[in-house]
Amino acid sequence: MMYWDLFDPPYKDRNPKPRTTGITMIIDKGLSPSETRNLLKLNAAFIDLIKLAFGTLCLYKPQTLVTKINLVKKHGIRLYPGGTFIELAYWRHKTTDLLPWLSDLGFEWLEISDGTLTISPKERSALIGEARQFGFQVITEVGKKETADQLSWAAIVQQVKLDLADGAAWVIIEARESGAGIGIYNQQGQLQKDMIAFLGDCLPLSQVIWEAPLKRQQAELITIFGPNVNLGNIPPAEAMALEALRLGLRSDTWKQALTK
Amino acid sequence: MMYWDLFDPPYKDRNPKPRTTGITMIIDKGLSPSETRNLLKLNAAFIDLIKLAFGTLCLYKPQTLVTKINLVKKHGIRLYPGGTFIELAYWRHKTTDLLPWLSDLGFEWLEISDGTLTISPKERSALIGEARQFGFQVITEVGKKETADQLSWAAIVQQVKLDLADGAAWVIIEARESGAGIGIYNQQGQLQKDMIAFLGDCLPLSQVIWEAPLKRQQAELITIFGPNVNLGNIPPAEAMALEALRLGLRSDTWKQALTK
Amino acid sequence: MMYWDLFDPPYKDRNPKPRTTGITMIIDKGLSPSETRNLLKLNAAFIDLIKLAFGTLCLYKPQTLVTKINLVKKHGIRLYPGGTFIELAYWRHKTTDLLPWLSDLGFEWLEISDGTLTISPKERSALIGEARQFGFQVITEVGKKETADQLSWAAIVQQVKLDLADGAAWVIIEARESGAGIGIYNQQGQLQKDMIAFLGDCLPLSQVIWEAPLKRQQAELITIFGPNVNLGNIPPAEAMALEALRLGLRSDTWKQALTK
Repeated sequence: MMYWDLFDPPYKDRNPKPRTTGITMIIDKGLSPSETRNLLKLNAAFIDLIKLAFGTLCLYKPQTLVTKINLVKKHGIRLYPGGTFIELAYWRHKTTDLLPWLSDLGFEWLEISDGTLTISPKERSALIGEARQFGFQVITEVGKKETADQLSWAAIVQQVKLDLADGAAWVIIEARESGAGIGIYNQQGQLQKDMIAFLGDCLPLSQVIWEAPLKRQQAELITIFGPNVNLGNIPPAEAMALEALRLGLRSDTWKQALTK
Repeated sequence: MMYWDLFDPPYKDRNPKPRTTGITMIIDKGLSPSETRNLLKLNAAFIDLIKLAFGTLCLYKPQTLVTKINLVKKHGIRLYPGGTFIELAYWRHKTTDLLPWLSDLGFEWLEISDGTLTISPKERSALIGEARQFGFQVITEVGKKETADQLSWAAIVQQVKLDLADGAAWVIIEARESGAGIGIYNQQGQLQKDMIAFLGDCLPLSQVIWEAPLKRQQAELITIFGPNVNLGNIPPAEAMALEALRLGLRSDTWKQALTK
Repeated sequence: MMYWDLFDPPYKDRNPKPRTTGITMIIDKGLSPSETRNLLKLNAAFIDLIKLAFGTLCLYKPQTLVTKINLVKKHGIRLYPGGTFIELAYWRHKTTDLLPWLSDLGFEWLEISDGTLTISPKERSALIGEARQFGFQVITEVGKKETADQLSWAAIVQQVKLDLADGAAWVIIEARESGAGIGIYNQQGQLQKDMIAFLGDCLPLSQVIWEAPLKRQQAELITIFGPNVNLGNIPPAEAMALEALRLGLRSDTWKQALTK
């Protein structure tokens, strides 16, 4: 008998896998296959995507990548290279060589971003097209990694819409690993409420993944958008804690249900 | 030959297990059985209690819970559901169904709290009684999870005494996972020294567990109350580092021995 | 085919192992043998030294130490006791007993420091000599663990030079696990640029290891001194992320290559 048979959690309309909304994307800064197996043992049902952080893909032995890709695929999860990896490949004019190689390894998803490089909208569109021609599903990311280079709210909305028109499955709103001074977060990592209200009004939320590395950020976004908000850059050790937040099994989100 | 045969650590009157004072309680946000095994391999002698954080218990397969309970029991450690889990059950009026189920799984300890819910002293007392009737040993927790709702010093003392009179084995002083803006810590996570002096005077320290997630907090409480202070919400990766603090094997606590 | 055959990372002059410059030293606060194996599975090529934090060595069963020493040695890595351990032994007048015992366990390197104790230059020199007589290679550490006790810039330079003259292989610049209010970092953990410029001019950089627990610190030191700067107190989970920083596979260091 499961606990679930005995009572409902505060929020019970959590989408089951496979899902297109309610995505949890984990940031992986170097989990061994055995550590990945440990993560999945408890959390496979809570995780949809695992991103190999920035350019760490270059630091793996190919056989280890194959092992990790197949391991997570068995649990209905997709492993994909961080956007910085593709930016590096683009910078070296090597995407035509690298994309088939990634496909041969077993990758099925790619992230396309311009967090570090300057890439024109036309070039970006062409890169998304190239990735899709090679058979990849594409996630894009909007936002710059430097606090000094942040995009205007309108520019974010425009780019998200262009990417979706180009066939992106989801668009990630950049917040890095730190979640401070970037995108929807101020220097202290607090959610800019007017900005999130604006973006929430203008964007198709089922196709937007908010990077939200900190617990407070996850709790606020769940409070605003509900248990099936798409969240990314979740540290592996926080996967179960995030699922608890989504379902109201932690004070930070449960208390909203109590005051209703 | 052990290092211990060669010389004494700065603080050598650390209680051995099984102990009633000098408790270390670990917060577990989702360790797999294999990760739990790794934790115990080095730290079994340093750990007394492991708490399944907030309502994460709901996210486990029952068989995994049984595996974890039995695994830690073999090392003289008790796994127990976080207080939020019992608050959720109480809120759904399901404690009568759930307590026997928890007992069947192998749980022997429960935490009873009102960190999120408002529960009257009379109801709290009845809930402690119900848990004890079902055969559980009870740990209670005193304190509110919201910074705005903090209890007065006198109210904390009163509730601790009531809980002990109701048969609680230990009472935890709430500080959450963050250790900031809650209970004995100010917004910056610093110990409120006048408050701790007051509570130290009024409370039976052998039955109080201070949540102290941050190293600085652990070091200060050990400096004030000695190596056998009861500490909780210790991250798993900090178990050995805390034991080093207790014994004066780290500068933060050793330096007190040097200046004596 | 490796990714490396397809294109060069932004910084490609990274020294391979075994190396004397470009050292990464990991701080180990209690990894089980199995966790150590997981760390090495992906990161063996990126790690040169693993330090058992402060006095945690005392908390191990000798057999576990032997297992860990042999495990990392197979990967060309050296495990060694934290400086606080040797300070404790020195304080108890037990180095003559303990050094042979450490050697029998399989340790080949020692760290000699005075982060907590006051040790005169003459005594320090004698201690380095004693360790070397027992067959150890010596790493020293310069700096005090208390913010109030920080050394002058000139005193740091002088001590580093004395230690190297006494035969130290490397000298670590103290920053603790926190990287704040100590040595080259201010209270906010920011690099003191005038201090690092001074030390960079005066010290033989190939023999200096900068403790740099935070990502921002690692990125700044790599930007100043290049991919083969020696860095220490790296958390195990950050080993691969640091290697990515060294090679320009992360925005923080890659962007320097772009603006050149």
